Amino acid sequence: MPLPLNRDSVLQAHELIKPHIHLTPVQTNTTLSNLASTPQSHDALKGTPWEGQDPAKPKIRLFFKCENFQRIGAFKVRGAFHAVKRLIEEQEIEEVRRKGVVTHSSGNHAQALALAAKTFSIPAHIVMPTISTPSKIAGTQAQGANIHFSGSTSQEREAVVKEIVKQTGATLVPPYDHPNILLGQGTAALELQSQAAELMATDKGLSVAEGKQGLDAVITPCGGGGLLSGTAVAMFGTGIRVFGAEPSFQGADDARRGVESGKRIETVKTLTIADGLRTPLGEVTWKIVSDNGMVRGLYSVAEEQIKSAMRLVLERMKCFVEPSAVVGLATVLYNEDFRRMVEKEAGEEGWNIGIVFSGGNTTVEAISKLFAPATEAKAERAEGVVGQDGSKMAENVAG
Amino acid sequence: MPLPLNRDSVLQAHELIKPHIHLTPVQTNTTLSNLASTPQSHDALKGTPWEGQDPAKPKIRLFFKCENFQRIGAFKVRGAFHAVKRLIEEQEIEEVRRKGVVTHSSGNHAQALALAAKTFSIPAHIVMPTISTPSKIAGTQAQGANIHFSGSTSQEREAVVKEIVKQTGATLVPPYDHPNILLGQGTAALELQSQAAELMATDKGLSVAEGKQGLDAVITPCGGGGLLSGTAVAMFGTGIRVFGAEPSFQGADDARRGVESGKRIETVKTLTIADGLRTPLGEVTWKIVSDNGMVRGLYSVAEEQIKSAMRLVLERMKCFVEPSAVVGLATVLYNEDFRRMVEKEAGEEGWNIGIVFSGGNTTVEAISKLFAPATEAKAERAEGVVGQDGSKMAENVAG
Repeated sequence: MPLPLNRDSVLQAHELIKPHIHLTPVQTNTTLSNLASTPQSHDALKGTPWEGQDPAKPKIRLFFKCENFQRIGAFKVRGAFHAVKRLIEEQEIEEVRRKGVVTHSSGNHAQALALAAKTFSIPAHIVMPTISTPSKIAGTQAQGANIHFSGSTSQEREAVVKEIVKQTGATLVPPYDHPNILLGQGTAALELQSQAAELMATDKGLSVAEGKQGLDAVITPCGGGGLLSGTAVAMFGTGIRVFGAEPSFQGADDARRGVESGKRIETVKTLTIADGLRTPLGEVTWKIVSDNGMVRGLYSVAEEQIKSAMRLVLERMKCFVEPSAVVGLATVLYNEDFRRMVEKEAGEEGWNIGIVFSGGNTTVEAISKLFAPATEAKAERAEGVVGQDGSKMAENVAG
Repeated sequence: MPLPLNRDSVLQAHELIKPHIHLTPVQTNTTLSNLASTPQSHDALKGTPWEGQDPAKPKIRLFFKCENFQRIGAFKVRGAFHAVKRLIEEQEIEEVRRKGVVTHSSGNHAQALALAAKTFSIPAHIVMPTISTPSKIAGTQAQGANIHFSGSTSQEREAVVKEIVKQTGATLVPPYDHPNILLGQGTAALELQSQAAELMATDKGLSVAEGKQGLDAVITPCGGGGLLSGTAVAMFGTGIRVFGAEPSFQGADDARRGVESGKRIETVKTLTIADGLRTPLGEVTWKIVSDNGMVRGLYSVAEEQIKSAMRLVLERMKCFVEPSAVVGLATVLYNEDFRRMVEKEAGEEGWNIGIVFSGGNTTVEAISKLFAPATEAKAERAEGVVGQDGSKMAENVAG
């Protein structure tokens, strides 16, 4: 008895998970809103498809949902807590405690599921590739999960998961491609919507247009599509447009390309610095993301644009985020297709745009690699062997 | 008619500057409070004066006053706005506008004074050494100030200031050694005190001791001593103990050493990574900081300890701070003298300690230099020629 994929289900999910998550702040920043409302220089467009054209002049006011301040440092706890709480409703807590839950992930979802399971004294099995960074393994172990190692291909991972399910009866909680997960992730947009409206109601300076008291659009990063599709479901019927943002590096913009060609892209091989977005869409998330009535558009940005947006968020907002988190902001600041669309649709009034900062799980070493003057790290990346975060190139297959 | 240096004057300063500053948040963090309440390992004490001894076991709950989110990214606007508003009260606004204000500083105070002056349409003259980093020059120019260049010794700077005063009649607003400046800086502690009490009243989990509803101590960084002495004045008579924290590198702990020897140290030559704390105490701040009834103790920490605290604040709190900002936290986490004192004085009940994060004006490049694997930068530093931020060694004389 899966929940229908609509706003009401996201509202119900929110009630279920509220006691377990932080109400993360929504922040505004005058410098960044001004920058978004300033046309890019002609120089900035050199070497891009928009070279020689007049830069767009959109009017944009930004509202940032800071999920980097969320528990475990990312929005992923929303989906994980929702999935676990639904499981308890469906199977009774004793049964869930006897069988446990299992997932294959080396990222934020692993820690999120481990935390949610620990909260209800449920055993969690996490299948991680042996090449996972030690800090990720330690972080997940710290949440009390049982770590199982596997090879790095999806077949190898799935084999280990199957074996665990066979031995324990554990329920698979996938990282994004499941209704309960995406409904949980959609709760961030619910909060963003009402927090932004509240900010606008109390500070008239934030909204130039008289009487305009809400968001016009929300943009989120898109990897496996859990956050984006959940946001689209949550905002459907509100009049708030939903957009997705991806890195373009080495074909990481599988959602945009898939929608363009009308067919889901099932495999992605990329080492984009936005390492949370290296995964292709899943079957469930594809249905929502590729539906133009749900997600109004997909945009992609270059690695340098992600870095530039990240620098602004760190240095100007004093807010510690991971590269994946700022792909939406990079789109708003640097993607001329997006900016022209806003200029055309929003006109003189401009738009109030909500941006979801998805997480802040990076390290000072990773930042050093991103922003230090050219070193061997760069050379290795040019060869396409090792990612900025030291990860080896592995096929990312929709899960 | 200077104001008396007491809490009431800080309260008056607060009323004056409130419309011009942000009420920055006070944050708590379970991980960091737990870490502060965990004894250091015997290994961590190796090579320190406490090697082989039993590590202290203090109980500590931390409250962070995030002045990195303040306007211009640092507490310095508090003193600057206070000084400028007092000047307007004393001289009439037309006279101040005709004459202007002047200071010698290449750091946060320059931008703070430029902003305060701009707010009231007062011309600001900022004397900067020609070796200042371009970003600092640009940041100050962006606030509309007139930049004047000088040599990097204090004599050269003062000569340029004198010339400006002679030509324009501008009033000197020093960076820290002035009653109005330190009374302004003290307002951060006023806010911290009431915000922390409010947090404790609404979340019982934050304070282990029943009925304990306030801070026991505040610790701030100490460079020129404006923030520390202002905090001491603001907290005097409240029962809240005030402590100061300094880097120990190359004698940057001039306040601690001065108090120990009973004589103010007037010159400091250090390239500590906490570049906001390279200055010695001034005459006014020395009187307060060296008064044991005002400042209960001074502690110093090593460069690696500052880096380690900075990593925790960035990666765990997701809060973007500059190295100078975390010297207080480094003391609480790593200085065994401080930790033993807390264990002894606070006993089983423990202390609620307020920590002022003084600012967040650093760059991703500076972080890269701090945390990247060993490179030439390190070799240069070892030679003592160039600071982590690229600054050349120059004498810092109390101003």
